[in-house]
Order: sequence, then C-alpha cells, then structure tokens
Amino acid sequence: MQALWLENGQLSVCDVPIPDAAGRGEALVHVRLSGICGTDLELVRGYYPYSGVLGHEFVGEVVEAPDPAWIGARVVGEINDACGTCPTCRAGRPTHCEARTVLGIVGRDGVHAEYVRLPMVNLHRVPDTVSDEAAVFTEPLAAAVEILQQVHIAPTDRVLLVGAGRLGQLVAQVLALTSAELCVVARHPLQRDLLRARNIATIAEEDVAPRTWDVVVEATGSPSGLDQARAALRPRGTLVLKSTYAGEVTLDLSPFVVDEITVVGSRCGPFAPAIRLLERGDVDPTALIAERYPLANAVEAMQHAAERGVMKVLLEP
Amino acid sequence: MQALWLENGQLSVCDVPIPDAAGRGEALVHVRLSGICGTDLELVRGYYPYSGVLGHEFVGEVVEAPDPAWIGARVVGEINDACGTCPTCRAGRPTHCEARTVLGIVGRDGVHAEYVRLPMVNLHRVPDTVSDEAAVFTEPLAAAVEILQQVHIAPTDRVLLVGAGRLGQLVAQVLALTSAELCVVARHPLQRDLLRARNIATIAEEDVAPRTWDVVVEATGSPSGLDQARAALRPRGTLVLKSTYAGEVTLDLSPFVVDEITVVGSRCGPFAPAIRLLERGDVDPTALIAERYPLANAVEAMQHAAERGVMKVLLEP
Repeated sequence: MQALWLENGQLSVCDVPIPDAAGRGEALVHVRLSGICGTDLELVRGYYPYSGVLGHEFVGEVVEAPDPAWIGARVVGEINDACGTCPTCRAGRPTHCEARTVLGIVGRDGVHAEYVRLPMVNLHRVPDTVSDEAAVFTEPLAAAVEILQQVHIAPTDRVLLVGAGRLGQLVAQVLALTSAELCVVARHPLQRDLLRARNIATIAEEDVAPRTWDVVVEATGSPSGLDQARAALRPRGTLVLKSTYAGEVTLDLSPFVVDEITVVGSRCGPFAPAIRLLERGDVDPTALIAERYPLANAVEAMQHAAERGVMKVLLEP
Repeated sequence: MQALWLENGQLSVCDVPIPDAAGRGEALVHVRLSGICGTDLELVRGYYPYSGVLGHEFVGEVVEAPDPAWIGARVVGEINDACGTCPTCRAGRPTHCEARTVLGIVGRDGVHAEYVRLPMVNLHRVPDTVSDEAAVFTEPLAAAVEILQQVHIAPTDRVLLVGAGRLGQLVAQVLALTSAELCVVARHPLQRDLLRARNIATIAEEDVAPRTWDVVVEATGSPSGLDQARAALRPRGTLVLKSTYAGEVTLDLSPFVVDEITVVGSRCGPFAPAIRLLERGDVDPTALIAERYPLANAVEAMQHAAERGVMKVLLEP
C-alpha cells in the first residue's frame, strides 16, 4: 500500500506492506481521510525520534476485525495503545501508560496511508450525520475537550486563549460553549475571520489586560506565547498548556509561586464527548480545511501545511 | 399603572401607583414582556407569604435612571437586591444576603406590571441580536447556568436530568453544551418533542439504569422525582436539586451517607453567561413559549400556566 514514510528526517511516499492486523487481534481500517497535525511537522523537524508511517488524525472504514459486527463501520480511533496491565493503566490512566505506543508518533505506524491497524478498544463509530470532513477532526477536538475534563471553567470566569492555529481554533469553539467570557489572541487575519464567523471575540495582543484573566490557555507552542499567557493570568489563576514546546524553554518560575498559579499540562482527550459535539453541531471544524491532497502528493501537502497561517490540510488515500 | 396583584392568595389585575424609583436611587424600567414562572404559581398556592405585584422574569426598557447613559437601554434584571454590607454580602455571596429583597417574591414588587423599579447594579443590557422573546428567559436560563457554576461536569460524565418542564428544558439545553452524555426523563410528549428538536436524548423512566449516573439533576420539584434521581445516582455521584419543594419531604438519608453522595442545592445564577448563550445562539428558549397574554388578562394567563404540561406563558403590558 501507499504510505507517507518518515526516516532520518526525510519524507517520502512509498510502498509498504499492508499492516497485519489479524495476526495481532486488531482491526484493519481503510483510511478515508487523514489530517496533517502540527505534531507531524514537528516529527519531521526531529522533535521526537520516529521512523515509520506518519499521521494520527483520521476517519476510516473497518475492513477486518475480530468482531464481525464492526466490519464496514465508519470509525475514528484513539491514538494511545496502552498495555492495560502496568500500574499506570491499572490506576485508570491508560493514556499515560509507560509502555504505550502512539499512532504515528511512538512505535506504531500511522494513518497517512491506505490502511492502518488499531486495537478494537481504540475505535469509535462515527454517527451517520457526521461527515468524513468533520470526523477527521475528532482527535484534535478531543484534545480540546480535554481542557474541560481537567479544569472546571465556571460560567462567570474570564478566559483568554493565546493562539488560534489548527488546535487553537478547536479549543476556541469548545471554550465558547462554557458560556464563560472568552477572548482569543489570534495573530493572522484568517484566524480572526474564522473565529468571528463563530461569534467568538478576538483581542489584540496589546489590549490584553495583565493579571486579570481567571483561566489562560496557551496554544501557540512558542515561548513568547507562554510569556504572554503567564502575564495575562490573575494571581491564583489557572494556566493551561495546550501545546508542546520543541526544545528547552527558559522561564522565571518565581511569579508562579508568588502568584500561586496552577499550571495544567493538557494532551489527548476523550473521543466520545468530541463526537457528541460534532453530532449536535455545537462545534463545526470543516471551515478549517485549507486543502485536500491525494496521498500520492503527501510530501507536497506537508510542505503546504508547514506554511505560516495554513489551517488543516487533509490527505485522501 | 396596571399590575398583577397577589394578596391573601387572591390574584387580580388592578391599578397601582408607578414605583418611585428616583426617590430610592434606582432605575425605573418599562416592562416589555414578562414570563410566568413556577414560583409565581407556588406563591399563589401559599408556598411563601407574599403580597404585592407578582413576577420576576422580564425584559424591559429603562425610562428613568441615576446615570442617563442607561435611559432607553433594553435590559434584563437580577432578582436579588442585596444590602451589600452584611457579612454574607462582604463574603462575596450577595444572592444569599440575609437582608435581601427578591423581585416579586420577598418584599419587593415584581414585574407583571407596566413598570418596575430595580437597583442599577441588577441591570444587564440586552444585545441587539437577542429578541425580547429570548431575553425574557434570561433569569431562568441563568438559574440553569448556575449548575455549571457550582459543579464541574466533565465531558466523560453521564448526566441524567429528571424533569423537563419550564426550567428543565433550559437546564437540558445548558447541560447539552458540556459534551457530557446527557439523557432526560421527560413525562409529557410535548416536553420530549422540544428536547428532540434540540438533538437531546430522552429516556423512559423505566429504562433509567439505577446507581450508574455520575451527575443527576432533579428539576421536577416532586418527591417522586427526587426518589428517582436518588436511585439513578452512582455511589460518590453528585445530586443537584434544581427545584424547590413545597412542604416537607420524607427522606431516607442513610443511602446518602453509605453511598457518599454529594447533594448540591442550586438556585439563582449569573446573568452575563446566560446572555452570552442567547447571543451566540447556543441556547434557544423561544420554542418554549406557549402563549402571550395582554397584562389585562393576567389572571387567565396564570390559570393557563398552571395547567399540566404547559410551558412558558408570557405577559405583555
């Protein structure tokens, strides 16, 4: 099958064997659409040593499964494959399993390919009313929902989101549903337009009042975004880190202690609530699609996705 | 002016003086629409000894105000008038002020009238994009939002709402936005139709699995609804009491202790988030309007509102 392969920082579309799902008691899924994530781009830059098929955002159709009731089902899939037996798994934190593989990120071939194998427990059926173009956003949308899983955002809170890129846009749509007062720092005009189309308020960097926001979500992944987020937060406020940072970040931690700030790191989230949001139409990610490429042109698609201000680029096997 | 007057359990539309707002440093508001609440009906039944103009849900227009910038503004108003100086007020709990008056409920004439007076601090401007018919629901919608202010409902929670009347419908719309798995026990076909039109799942009483729901909201105000809510809750779950109960309720409290249940009583809520939900269209209460009556026919309107299964009845001065 065709797949987007990463090795030693080099990308190529090449022919690889169809994964042996049956031999491992897993499902084989034919990929209908996959989405290019910032993490894919960072893996190419060497953020984490990974070789194999890239990609972890997808919607597909089950073609082989231990339980035949799943064959033909349209599905999305969670990306962490936990061992289920280690102390962390037994403590109810399987997404933090020390022995886990992660789809297209750690030790497990990803979804920018014609087929992908995944454990049955990772699969979620997509309701008929949710299009492929919406369903392909389930994984990053779940990551946005994770903020609400971790932090109680009260309706009277003032919430600032710094960053309105691929993930930031989804975070904004999810945070808006809390009824809290939400403002988003969005640098690019396209980002602002997308937010305004959803009735979400934007604010210029220089207009952000310092030390006043109850909850600040950092979604830029850049040290300057982190500084800005930190400066906006009120004493005893909550700072949510929704991006990973490539390399080391130099920080003055004294204000964290003096102002008694709570910092919450936030990664993968629950799929079922994300699917409910798509099904009810409370979130609509499809306006974020910049372009669709055939899988054969995946290298070009990755270059496009890496351009400044470009939203979601999709691949079609 | 014309007003709906309650005295010794008797209702009448009569002529009363226009309130002297200026003499008290308050705003005088011309009522555009008012809504009949279950509490209005309970006050007539003697739930609380009250004499005066009934009603606390309204949208109106400011005609007199200490600050002229407010004159002509379309407003809704919070119902608790707190003293601002007692220990409870100073502790940041003004809606629980021991010396408070409550619009149309405790020691302060209400809104089923041509005019009402209110402290400036109680007023909230209504955005132009929110109709009178939607804005008149702000007060009960704020009460629904109060649940999210008090309880952290996680996206992966299973939430059961028992009761889908006037307030229950608004609670359902607000809870649906959390992305949690929500089911509503709704007895009347009209209630179920309204929920289905919003893509909110309903469940028959007999299908509610006992001891499994993470959060259960009781919005029937009846002891049988309370029993049902209690039975559905999982050990260590949270039971939200969103209704008041007329008279005494006999309860076996042992299971509360044995199952380590948290009970949260929930009353008035924050207006600003409720207005944001209306402005963004995340909640649409207008389908709940059963009928509009001229204020002159308010006694008949109250009879209509008291009929089984009737949703919101509005009065137009």
